[in-house]
Amino acid sequence: MSGSLVIAGLGPGNEALVTPEVRAALALATDVVGYIPYVARVAPREGLTLHASDNRVEIDRSQHALQMAAEGKHVVVVSSGDPGVFAMASAVFEALEAGPAAWLDIDIQVLPGITASLAAAAQAGAPLGHDFCTINLSDNLKPWSLIEKRLRLAAEADFAMAFYNPRSKARPEGFVRALEVLNEACGDDRPVIFARAVTTPEQVINVVPLSQATPEMADMRTMVIVGSSTTRIIKRAAGNIIYTPRSVL
Amino acid sequence: MSGSLVIAGLGPGNEALVTPEVRAALALATDVVGYIPYVARVAPREGLTLHASDNRVEIDRSQHALQMAAEGKHVVVVSSGDPGVFAMASAVFEALEAGPAAWLDIDIQVLPGITASLAAAAQAGAPLGHDFCTINLSDNLKPWSLIEKRLRLAAEADFAMAFYNPRSKARPEGFVRALEVLNEACGDDRPVIFARAVTTPEQVINVVPLSQATPEMADMRTMVIVGSSTTRIIKRAAGNIIYTPRSVL
Repeated sequence: MSGSLVIAGLGPGNEALVTPEVRAALALATDVVGYIPYVARVAPREGLTLHASDNRVEIDRSQHALQMAAEGKHVVVVSSGDPGVFAMASAVFEALEAGPAAWLDIDIQVLPGITASLAAAAQAGAPLGHDFCTINLSDNLKPWSLIEKRLRLAAEADFAMAFYNPRSKARPEGFVRALEVLNEACGDDRPVIFARAVTTPEQVINVVPLSQATPEMADMRTMVIVGSSTTRIIKRAAGNIIYTPRSVL
Repeated sequence: MSGSLVIAGLGPGNEALVTPEVRAALALATDVVGYIPYVARVAPREGLTLHASDNRVEIDRSQHALQMAAEGKHVVVVSSGDPGVFAMASAVFEALEAGPAAWLDIDIQVLPGITASLAAAAQAGAPLGHDFCTINLSDNLKPWSLIEKRLRLAAEADFAMAFYNPRSKARPEGFVRALEVLNEACGDDRPVIFARAVTTPEQVINVVPLSQATPEMADMRTMVIVGSSTTRIIKRAAGNIIYTPRSVL
């Protein structure tokens, strides 16, 4: 019996953002594996086993998923957002590369999802409408010096910037420092978007000039987007629109 | 009568990647506006007028959409991919900002879609699984010197890179130069993914080392992804997997 492994993105939270491709994969699954709140988004049904695990055990979870697929199960690993952006796809491939050779024969597919940065950008307007970069601000898996170097180079390149995992409870000082670096490197007072719990009923979007951005405005459920030097604000009674024009000519 | 304007992403081509949110907006539209091949993806029905226009008329198209919404129509502007990534959202906001004050009262929403870079990444594995940048290589709307500066800084920051519009028929020399800059700036022989017509029946994915990448491998339907220094290839009989690990420790 031949199993399969699908690494699927559930999008940022709103069920209307889950693609039909991902719904179809979930409908065929025998086993769904993932972080507790993401597995909770999958409806239980007969013939489906849900395997919810805690945060920070991505490699264990990946090995478990690969092992079940190797045994003939149809396994879906669920991520929020897009599985290829600071989510489960890389973790599964790390486990695959380090695992037994037999795992290399597993039928594996990655199904994209709406990632948080693009969902947040859509809520604010189009701040990522020109060249941009996407940086994970967590220093769990890379040294802080590299994050700081990337922030400075991104500012010099005049990219708009989207930040995932801006501020952990354990190490809140990283984001304090990131804001200092950005204020120094960007110079002008460009718009910063704090988008919390995007597309869920708890969504809050807050836009402030960089000089007024404070660390408390972000937590781990917040996507932070910093405009480039050309990002503009259209003021409207119905809600301001933040966008980056296509042209820099 | 109160109109509305929705700027919606149709994803890269596969209809199973169109979100239910976008489907619902199309079902309520009186008018759909967009570039000919994208409007062709919307099924005709009674009560819906399709307005297909040619490439390079984004501002005219945006003004037309805004004007119809101001007159009470329910207008959907369709983009491929995500409308906020090198697509119609910024064009509409440029037209809005330059247009009559009455347009500021229009009910406007941006609905995200699966952008080509993330669809291409999913087909290849997870090359954008760590920090990355997204650059439009077309020099229609920005000077070539800025593109080259961004390539050099992105290489210095060790971002994986996703390139939209890598090679135009009119000015193919840009991509020749981009490959030269990347070979020089990246030094090592990192993997380059050429992903053409992603998720459509014509999809072709080609992976080569940077030193063997040639300009003819790309056209305007190709997404090009260049790995970072940590990007890895897992060799498999069932097809190689390209991914960037989460950690650089």
